Amino acid sequence: MFRYTQYNDKRGDIWQWPTHMRLSRIVLMVLVILILTPLFTHFYLSNIERNVGSVTHDAHSHEDLPDKLNEINDSDLKIGVAELLRIKGSVLSELRDMESKRQKLLAEIQSYMRSIEELKEELTHQQTNLNKLKISVEQAQVAQKEALEQNTPDLAFPKRFVVNELLEEVSFPSRVASKKCRMFSCFDHSRCSLTSGFPVYLYEPDKFMILHKGWDVDGFLKTTLKQALGYNPHLTNDPKEACIYLVLVGEALKSIENFDTNVTNKISSIDSSALRKLKYWGGDGRNHVLLNLSRRDLTVVSGDIFSSVDTGRAIIVQSTFTHENYRPNFDLIITPVLGPPGGDVWQECSSMLPARRRYLLTFQGEIKSRTEEKFKLSELENFVLQHLRGLLKTKTSDKFLFEFECSLANDDNSKIGPEDWALCGTDSSRKAILKESTFALIFAPNSAFISTSLLQGRLYEALRSGAIPVILGGDQIRLAYDEVIQWRRVAIFLPMARITELHFLLRTIPDEDVLLMRRQCRLVWEKYLASVQSEAEQEESLGPLEPPFDSPSYRRNFSLILTQGHELWNDWGDPFRLYPALPTDPWLPSDAKFMGSGRGFRPIGQGQGGAGKEFSEALGGNSPREQFTVLLLTYEREQVLLDSIARLRGLPYLHSVVVVWNSPRPPNAELKWPDIGAPVHVVNAARNSLNNRFLPLDNLKTEAILSVDDDAHLRHDEILFGFRVWREHRDRIVGFPGRYHAWDINTQNSWLYNSNYSCELSMVLTGAAFLHKHYLHLYWKWLPQAIRDKVDEYMNCEDIAMNFLVSHITRQPPVKVTSRWTFRCLGCPQSLSEDDTHFQERHKCINFFSQVFGYTPLLSTQYRADSILFKTRIPHDKQKCFKFI
Amino acid sequence: MFRYTQYNDKRGDIWQWPTHMRLSRIVLMVLVILILTPLFTHFYLSNIERNVGSVTHDAHSHEDLPDKLNEINDSDLKIGVAELLRIKGSVLSELRDMESKRQKLLAEIQSYMRSIEELKEELTHQQTNLNKLKISVEQAQVAQKEALEQNTPDLAFPKRFVVNELLEEVSFPSRVASKKCRMFSCFDHSRCSLTSGFPVYLYEPDKFMILHKGWDVDGFLKTTLKQALGYNPHLTNDPKEACIYLVLVGEALKSIENFDTNVTNKISSIDSSALRKLKYWGGDGRNHVLLNLSRRDLTVVSGDIFSSVDTGRAIIVQSTFTHENYRPNFDLIITPVLGPPGGDVWQECSSMLPARRRYLLTFQGEIKSRTEEKFKLSELENFVLQHLRGLLKTKTSDKFLFEFECSLANDDNSKIGPEDWALCGTDSSRKAILKESTFALIFAPNSAFISTSLLQGRLYEALRSGAIPVILGGDQIRLAYDEVIQWRRVAIFLPMARITELHFLLRTIPDEDVLLMRRQCRLVWEKYLASVQSEAEQEESLGPLEPPFDSPSYRRNFSLILTQGHELWNDWGDPFRLYPALPTDPWLPSDAKFMGSGRGFRPIGQGQGGAGKEFSEALGGNSPREQFTVLLLTYEREQVLLDSIARLRGLPYLHSVVVVWNSPRPPNAELKWPDIGAPVHVVNAARNSLNNRFLPLDNLKTEAILSVDDDAHLRHDEILFGFRVWREHRDRIVGFPGRYHAWDINTQNSWLYNSNYSCELSMVLTGAAFLHKHYLHLYWKWLPQAIRDKVDEYMNCEDIAMNFLVSHITRQPPVKVTSRWTFRCLGCPQSLSEDDTHFQERHKCINFFSQVFGYTPLLSTQYRADSILFKTRIPHDKQKCFKFI
Repeated sequence: MFRYTQYNDKRGDIWQWPTHMRLSRIVLMVLVILILTPLFTHFYLSNIERNVGSVTHDAHSHEDLPDKLNEINDSDLKIGVAELLRIKGSVLSELRDMESKRQKLLAEIQSYMRSIEELKEELTHQQTNLNKLKISVEQAQVAQKEALEQNTPDLAFPKRFVVNELLEEVSFPSRVASKKCRMFSCFDHSRCSLTSGFPVYLYEPDKFMILHKGWDVDGFLKTTLKQALGYNPHLTNDPKEACIYLVLVGEALKSIENFDTNVTNKISSIDSSALRKLKYWGGDGRNHVLLNLSRRDLTVVSGDIFSSVDTGRAIIVQSTFTHENYRPNFDLIITPVLGPPGGDVWQECSSMLPARRRYLLTFQGEIKSRTEEKFKLSELENFVLQHLRGLLKTKTSDKFLFEFECSLANDDNSKIGPEDWALCGTDSSRKAILKESTFALIFAPNSAFISTSLLQGRLYEALRSGAIPVILGGDQIRLAYDEVIQWRRVAIFLPMARITELHFLLRTIPDEDVLLMRRQCRLVWEKYLASVQSEAEQEESLGPLEPPFDSPSYRRNFSLILTQGHELWNDWGDPFRLYPALPTDPWLPSDAKFMGSGRGFRPIGQGQGGAGKEFSEALGGNSPREQFTVLLLTYEREQVLLDSIARLRGLPYLHSVVVVWNSPRPPNAELKWPDIGAPVHVVNAARNSLNNRFLPLDNLKTEAILSVDDDAHLRHDEILFGFRVWREHRDRIVGFPGRYHAWDINTQNSWLYNSNYSCELSMVLTGAAFLHKHYLHLYWKWLPQAIRDKVDEYMNCEDIAMNFLVSHITRQPPVKVTSRWTFRCLGCPQSLSEDDTHFQERHKCINFFSQVFGYTPLLSTQYRADSILFKTRIPHDKQKCFKFI
Repeated sequence: MFRYTQYNDKRGDIWQWPTHMRLSRIVLMVLVILILTPLFTHFYLSNIERNVGSVTHDAHSHEDLPDKLNEINDSDLKIGVAELLRIKGSVLSELRDMESKRQKLLAEIQSYMRSIEELKEELTHQQTNLNKLKISVEQAQVAQKEALEQNTPDLAFPKRFVVNELLEEVSFPSRVASKKCRMFSCFDHSRCSLTSGFPVYLYEPDKFMILHKGWDVDGFLKTTLKQALGYNPHLTNDPKEACIYLVLVGEALKSIENFDTNVTNKISSIDSSALRKLKYWGGDGRNHVLLNLSRRDLTVVSGDIFSSVDTGRAIIVQSTFTHENYRPNFDLIITPVLGPPGGDVWQECSSMLPARRRYLLTFQGEIKSRTEEKFKLSELENFVLQHLRGLLKTKTSDKFLFEFECSLANDDNSKIGPEDWALCGTDSSRKAILKESTFALIFAPNSAFISTSLLQGRLYEALRSGAIPVILGGDQIRLAYDEVIQWRRVAIFLPMARITELHFLLRTIPDEDVLLMRRQCRLVWEKYLASVQSEAEQEESLGPLEPPFDSPSYRRNFSLILTQGHELWNDWGDPFRLYPALPTDPWLPSDAKFMGSGRGFRPIGQGQGGAGKEFSEALGGNSPREQFTVLLLTYEREQVLLDSIARLRGLPYLHSVVVVWNSPRPPNAELKWPDIGAPVHVVNAARNSLNNRFLPLDNLKTEAILSVDDDAHLRHDEILFGFRVWREHRDRIVGFPGRYHAWDINTQNSWLYNSNYSCELSMVLTGAAFLHKHYLHLYWKWLPQAIRDKVDEYMNCEDIAMNFLVSHITRQPPVKVTSRWTFRCLGCPQSLSEDDTHFQERHKCINFFSQVFGYTPLLSTQYRADSILFKTRIPHDKQKCFKFI
């Protein structure tokens, strides 16, 4: 598999194997011949030459000519000439003999040398095989030892609590006691053991309406909730085993007047006796969750329908709470139900660019003028309004837009709560303004409230349009899910008293941070607010040959939430799902592997380090040993595919090959899959789609995936070097073919795909690249459907989409690895990537994807990863890391 | 500056400059000569040869000899010979003439060719200079344009509030109102405008004692507080301008009995009239902060001394709060004052390794048996104890240690509060156990309390020893500074009811996360708990030549806290300090530079990308244009230094050179500093210390610092490639000489420093490396003094220390850049790094530093960064990124 072109370097090695007796005899013999033959030839030839020389010399030399001529006399001359002619004849024939002998000898020597070279090659090959085997045996021994060491007793599962065994002593006869509820005092953990699977029981939404006369729940909410929970694996039909009981109480259309305490008991507040009638309420409503979801139409304010109800131990989930009634870390503030039930939501978002929009800050709203003393604007609020009006007149290059009086979104003013600013105009008129706003001003509601639906609704609208919310009175309120979402990265919270500093503060924020916040706005909006459902579902020894070894999975189920929980919620993760392993899993310190945590590690030279020899024997690096899976996408090119697979024979660290057969016509049943020392799995795709390249298949058992085209032609050393580099950049795409996105300086408004020679790259194509298995999940679960649709439409661009995805999550460019490789196989049938329309589509893809993401996530890189001793002169007793790369 | 060795490639270029008329004439002339001379010579020589040939031919030819000899007769022969001799003589002389003429012509041709080469070289040089100048002019024009665009009007500072203008309407006659205090309702922001500098006024500690008879404040606290505030730039002596008023109320030695409400008013609770007597209390104590710091001795419990006092609008800061009295986001829970006043604290910490210690979980404590119904252990608590006792008997390989009865730390039991578990034994006996514990169990106090000093004290001790706290009843309590510290990354919070799952949970945490949490334990402890004071102040065209351009600084003062505030508090930052720029500053999206945020960016080929030519003309990349500063450490080797500086002449993107003159003897006043087109600053170090290499000097005006030894010999292209790679890894050390730390497999307990050829590296020496200026600050402000002391002791290892620091913060290895360079200058005086003791010291340094850090932060890398087209064959019309690297 590896051709040796540098034979000369190796000649000395022949003496290193004295154990091979037969070979050394041949070598000795050949050497004797090699030494004796030239000696003999030389001796013989030079003798002749001397004879010939002495004859021809006279005729040749100009200087001797006159003397010789003087000596010539008649008879002498005649005899001399005849004699000379005779000698000449004999010499010539002798010469001919000599020449033919010499030729024969030379041919013999060459054939011997050839045999020696062949033998040497064979020897090297055997030696390499032996070394490989030795390393593999050693590795197997270490693995066995580790397996033995791990054999500590398994833990028993925790014993299951007996329901109601604990917590009996507390009872909740009164509203006051219920106000003190916290998780530790009111929640029955015993129903939710770790092994229970967190079962959730949903009361039939219509049931509650029957219990509570005159109460109504919006039909949209009912269907949406049932639908969303339908996807949820935690839903149970067995109320006895449930951990949580969900009650869709409704949406408090009539609760506005509720705020005025005089009329509370008359209308709209919920009747607590209806709660007690719930079948599993059990006296105190423990583990019950009362859902008061706000309606879609933001122009109607939803209130706190539980303000005067004894809810026992139940948890309340709604958008509106007063400071007094909200129980921190127990009740849950949520956003109103505003988005569509599911699906792609990117179209509703505005582009993130430019960083600075037309207006620096905008606000539209009107507050109901009130007679009640309690809801009059405070002196401070009036000061704020005055200051903002002044801002409109300030001489500055920044533009503001403030409207404190407007045509209300809803004519029926009476429905608007006195605690908050009503919305103006229509959804689309507000959107038009917010799209032009760098920042969007939001007033906190009346200070008695910790949250209102209107506040959450305004936030929703601002985030959707990428206007960064500036919440005046931000210290008075709490936003939805703030136990986990870091709102400080999304919005600016400003105490009202600091209104005079507002303009100054906003100007200090540089473009980078405006865009960082806007990206975060969009991330939070798309993930948590946008839709009602969250989407459910030559020969060189390069290393040891080991049996397939799966990457360990689900090792950090619990600790992940502790150590990286915030990132999970706010950055790259999907907190609603558990993944087997993440690209961002932490590394152990380098000494840990020698002090108790060495399991799985294969330090180079047992920790001593080393050059090529030791390097090729162990993976080293910062992560434990692992293998990679080759993921091959193919389309009805059977011979090309078989050749590609065959080339993987003997590749170290190869776990298995997964072939995605991208055609409805299944592969020929008589196809003989080559034996490459690792399993080959074939997966038949339902239809021909390039998205299938990234199917998160169950038989991908390693974190490292080497994605390759069926005609990609990578050398073993290139693959292994790529694997090692990927192990240092597990969160990036690490691979071979580099491309970039170039700004179209003619139109100045779009990108061009570019595959020219370049010193700056921004993509590495997945036709030959390593990437983390996690990104396959994200490609299907996280990427908007519109992108996969575009890939199907063009039959193109899936690699661009993957580069967008990874750069979006990491904010890092890909890593380009080494140069020495031939990508396409010669003589293969042309792939579809050659023609011009292919290129045109790729331009369009980049621009379309940018639209979907709201910006272009790709970033640039200006270097290439090569092996450390590449093209370095090193002493003779050292080996390079790789011979050729 | 640049030697051209590949003249042949360039020969065609000579026709590309037809404007140079004089040169082209010379070229024409030379070409005529070049063409005509050989023609002429050939003609002449072949003529002669023909003549000579006809003469000598007869004598030469063997075949003709017999025929010729037959024709010879006597007289003819004699005449013929004489004639032949004459001809021979004339031919010979003619030949000699010809030969000398030929020689002359050849010499002439060679001299012409030399001139041509020289002219070509000169032309190329001039052309390069011209190109450089052109690029520089273009860059200057762009910079000028940007400067003009930036010229928008400055913002006015916000107007200062009039004190008491707002907030007058609220008054606090009663305790009840005070309980509702939040920042927006009780804090007067007007005293603390952004431009005020946040002035803090401290009441003289003794004053309060005079006001409050019988009250005493611990002397240690008084001095410590005054000392700590002494370093604080916010302290003011003018109470009128103060934003915050600090009152050291004391340490509530006598407040234990306070808990029993019957005796509250008799003893130890503070007298609220004393508060009102404070000079600036102003009726409601607005902006006052009442500090109730707990004593150092943990065995005495401090309580909530304000529980029955009307504290008005004042903020309360203490360790013990009940749920009822604690006002979230207003009052502050702090840790007791336990550490030393300052200084190195690493010695108190245990090593982080191994991940698993002798005991999985330990607890020592005793709870006072109580008669009062209120403080009896709850049924749940009893269940917990029973379960834990059962755990001791479980058959498992895990070891537990639980002691629920013990010799109390303090004999006087009466002093121990009824709400919490008392400490056992002595500080050192507890430390001995905790050092052997992977996890440390901590019970939440009685559920009425949100925090107690004992709880915070136990936490302090666990963190100090690296035992990860497991807080049972973690949902009942809050820890100190949890507004900013992410305690979930430090401790495990478990509801009491989940005690049965404890063992299972702890076993699910893999070593990586145990160590991640332990690292976080230590980080939080060292930064926030360990000491009372936080440490306070004390030739190829490679690119355009531009005037020095400082990196912009302090651009993210406000937004940094929003977008990366959590990292600042919990990871790499020092939240008490503002830095001009951080290595982790975010990148703009790639389209932002073309859509409104392009200021400062220099995209390659205006965004079109490109190969070598366009690459060399612009920086490209993900950050705006910038320059770097060469930081040179030198010690009395003036000529070596001057040569090194001179070599920097004409280096693009060089901002300036800062020479740290590491000797008390100042440089020779007559020293002539070479003019290199950039300023050279010389800083005289106070004493000869290698720590001076990283002095965060004021005249370092760029983020990128190229740290070099005075005898380092880097080529310009190497420097610029390193600079470009650093711009992609601003948070790492990016440089040339790679080293690694090897495990000593003989002793199996320490590291060896290694500089052999290796395929895995973990350090890049700062004798030739780029690093971010921020790390210079951290080297002096964050690194424990013990490390700098060790550097001084050995006169060695400062580069190792820097590698430790950077890897500790980033958890990433350094980046090794390209191979082609010569590090030491030949013939330079030997530097101190040559001898063997130097090496021995470096072994010791690695091990000592690991001790100080508690683990070895270095990580491995297995690749090298090369330029993208390095050793790649490219078409003739393209240029490589760099010619030689």
